[in-house]
Amino acid sequence: MLFDNKLFLLQIAVIIGFSHLVAALFRRFGQPKVVGEMAAGIALGPTLFGLFAPHSFHALFPPASLGYLNALSQAGLTIFIFLVGVRVDFAELRHQSRIAFVTSNVSVILPLLMGLGVAQYIFPRYGTGSPLAFALFIGTAMSVTAFPVLARILMERNLLTTRLGSVAIACAAVDDMTAWILLAVIVAMTKHDPHAQSLPSMMVYIAVYLVVAFILRWALEVWAKRFNDRKIPLDSILVFVVLALVSGAVGEQLGVHALVGAFIAGLVTPRRFREQLVDKLEAVTLIILMPLFFALTGIRTNFIFNAGAGMYFDFFLILLVAVASKWGGAAIGARAMGMGWREASQLGLLMNTRGLVGLVVLNVGLDLGILSPQLFSMMVAMALVTTFMATPLMDVFAAKKAGKPVAVPERVKAVSG
Amino acid sequence: MLFDNKLFLLQIAVIIGFSHLVAALFRRFGQPKVVGEMAAGIALGPTLFGLFAPHSFHALFPPASLGYLNALSQAGLTIFIFLVGVRVDFAELRHQSRIAFVTSNVSVILPLLMGLGVAQYIFPRYGTGSPLAFALFIGTAMSVTAFPVLARILMERNLLTTRLGSVAIACAAVDDMTAWILLAVIVAMTKHDPHAQSLPSMMVYIAVYLVVAFILRWALEVWAKRFNDRKIPLDSILVFVVLALVSGAVGEQLGVHALVGAFIAGLVTPRRFREQLVDKLEAVTLIILMPLFFALTGIRTNFIFNAGAGMYFDFFLILLVAVASKWGGAAIGARAMGMGWREASQLGLLMNTRGLVGLVVLNVGLDLGILSPQLFSMMVAMALVTTFMATPLMDVFAAKKAGKPVAVPERVKAVSG
Repeated sequence: MLFDNKLFLLQIAVIIGFSHLVAALFRRFGQPKVVGEMAAGIALGPTLFGLFAPHSFHALFPPASLGYLNALSQAGLTIFIFLVGVRVDFAELRHQSRIAFVTSNVSVILPLLMGLGVAQYIFPRYGTGSPLAFALFIGTAMSVTAFPVLARILMERNLLTTRLGSVAIACAAVDDMTAWILLAVIVAMTKHDPHAQSLPSMMVYIAVYLVVAFILRWALEVWAKRFNDRKIPLDSILVFVVLALVSGAVGEQLGVHALVGAFIAGLVTPRRFREQLVDKLEAVTLIILMPLFFALTGIRTNFIFNAGAGMYFDFFLILLVAVASKWGGAAIGARAMGMGWREASQLGLLMNTRGLVGLVVLNVGLDLGILSPQLFSMMVAMALVTTFMATPLMDVFAAKKAGKPVAVPERVKAVSG
Repeated sequence: MLFDNKLFLLQIAVIIGFSHLVAALFRRFGQPKVVGEMAAGIALGPTLFGLFAPHSFHALFPPASLGYLNALSQAGLTIFIFLVGVRVDFAELRHQSRIAFVTSNVSVILPLLMGLGVAQYIFPRYGTGSPLAFALFIGTAMSVTAFPVLARILMERNLLTTRLGSVAIACAAVDDMTAWILLAVIVAMTKHDPHAQSLPSMMVYIAVYLVVAFILRWALEVWAKRFNDRKIPLDSILVFVVLALVSGAVGEQLGVHALVGAFIAGLVTPRRFREQLVDKLEAVTLIILMPLFFALTGIRTNFIFNAGAGMYFDFFLILLVAVASKWGGAAIGARAMGMGWREASQLGLLMNTRGLVGLVVLNVGLDLGILSPQLFSMMVAMALVTTFMATPLMDVFAAKKAGKPVAVPERVKAVSG
């Protein structure tokens, strides 16, 4: 299909306009905007719009046209995650490094182990191929965190530079990097691809990458000193955008996703440039590109599940294991390191959002034939439920802190509303 | 080809990084950044990079991957031209409306007539098909102005809200709208498409569109009054971005290009929102998306011309007619309405930039079979020369004003350097 500029502009306008309306509606029910945008995508996709008005749906979103929207949203995602890295407060993070280290490990290992366990039970009914690859895959899908969703929630609630936010972002970065590495291992196991990277060589490349990033951080800090007592030129934005894009591409090449690369580029950026980068890039990514990214998954996915009667029990089991292991794992880890239990519970809820990263992982599983379509549907439902439950429950835990069991205190309303 | 996120991020990084370096180099020679970005595209394209390193060129820019870059750059162009419309100073424009009206008409009609004339001479050697369509096409290609290039030059030199800038933008908008309408007529003549719009129906739709835009402008002004004594919420950006995208899509539908639609959306936007829109959207478009747009033409076009000996005379004739009719037409029109001759000459030079809009028009002519490949090459060279000559000559006219025939005065240096 030839590129149709008229259709492309119209698609962007419809998606971001409609997402904004749904997000505004969802915020009245205590959901963050990002959840509203995901819901808007589901409504605009084959699940709702495509079901009730198939002709209009195919006219507005012909399959061949979605590639252009996806490209635009991927570029936006890279810049957005880069900005999350730029916003990380190193002082706060260093202060919380022990909590972050322990929590991130527990919040990967517990879901992974419990996923391996539940896989033994569900493999006979839904599994195909290697039981080991299946079990590892379920474990990985349980241990993943929706980095972009979590970052959006933290940003929307002004939590990014707090203790809770710093620990959550650090844990999510570690969890996701681990999950991508596990996914690469599973792909290699399943595909028997002779060109696939071996795990040891992948680890070596990642280590080299991290060392280069560390050196670059030092070099950029030296360079940043030039701007200590003068205005930063606007063109310096270009340097960091190029850094984010290249680092994202390197992340893809290493098998840890552009997300991880872009985040590391953000960490490497001297804090001296933070204000200008956030001021000049964040509005475009938050208002235009991120709604596009979050809605696009819904537009490209059919969420109509063919659930058999016996499947409900299995679904609830999967959901229970997912929530208990991730929420529980993160909360227990953080509590053990001295965080208050309410804050630790909020951290667990944040880590428990599987959202879009979960969907990306699950689609890989479906493509590889590891997941049957029914199990895929159940896992997708699990990813959505864990995402949708996060902020309403976070409000509950925040509310109890103020001694009011039901009413949300003014301070929380002001930040989240 | 499947979408390759790694390649996509890398392509953007290479294009914007390299464009920036070439633009910085070009600025030392008095050329605006936009010309440097166009040159960077030519260097990265089949003309240079593809010629000397064909394997690397095809690895970095496989043909199927360019569609994604093009989509991204088209969205960027729409937002950029929208911002140009937002920046238009109505008070200054109203003050200069007589100059703008006369100049825009002369600067369309003179090149069109001279193009029709020169077409009689060159048709026997290069023409195929209908002599009338050929003549109209040459006339249209002569009368077009590179709106995006002109806007970039005005912005870079802080001229957008001056008398010169206001008149130039208004004239360019009128010229381009006329050129797109003429092009639609030529396409309809050549294609004999029964579904093609007739000229009268096209004019009616455009008139309706302008009336709707006028009503919308009034409605938005009323709405803007709400924000008279309070801070504009960041989300209002969304309203205007959606407006720009929809208006761009409508422009495409009407056959006057998304450019014109986006520009009208910018004019419709209440000035109360100008500061926030420019502050939050302009850096991304100017630093990331516009270099992509300007470089992409070079990456997609082979500028290696197969010039025969006899062609040089024809090329210089075309160039002479193009420059004399457009520069001359605009300058004479503006001078007749009371503008000083130095300023009128600068205006003519700005209108004379054919740049990218010229290339778009010429590619349509090549696709329709109106232009032979040799004539296409000559017209492309003409479009580039008229663009590259603009700012160095503008400096000459600005310099003479200060009474120094050679040296560029400090004030001009400070703005352009």
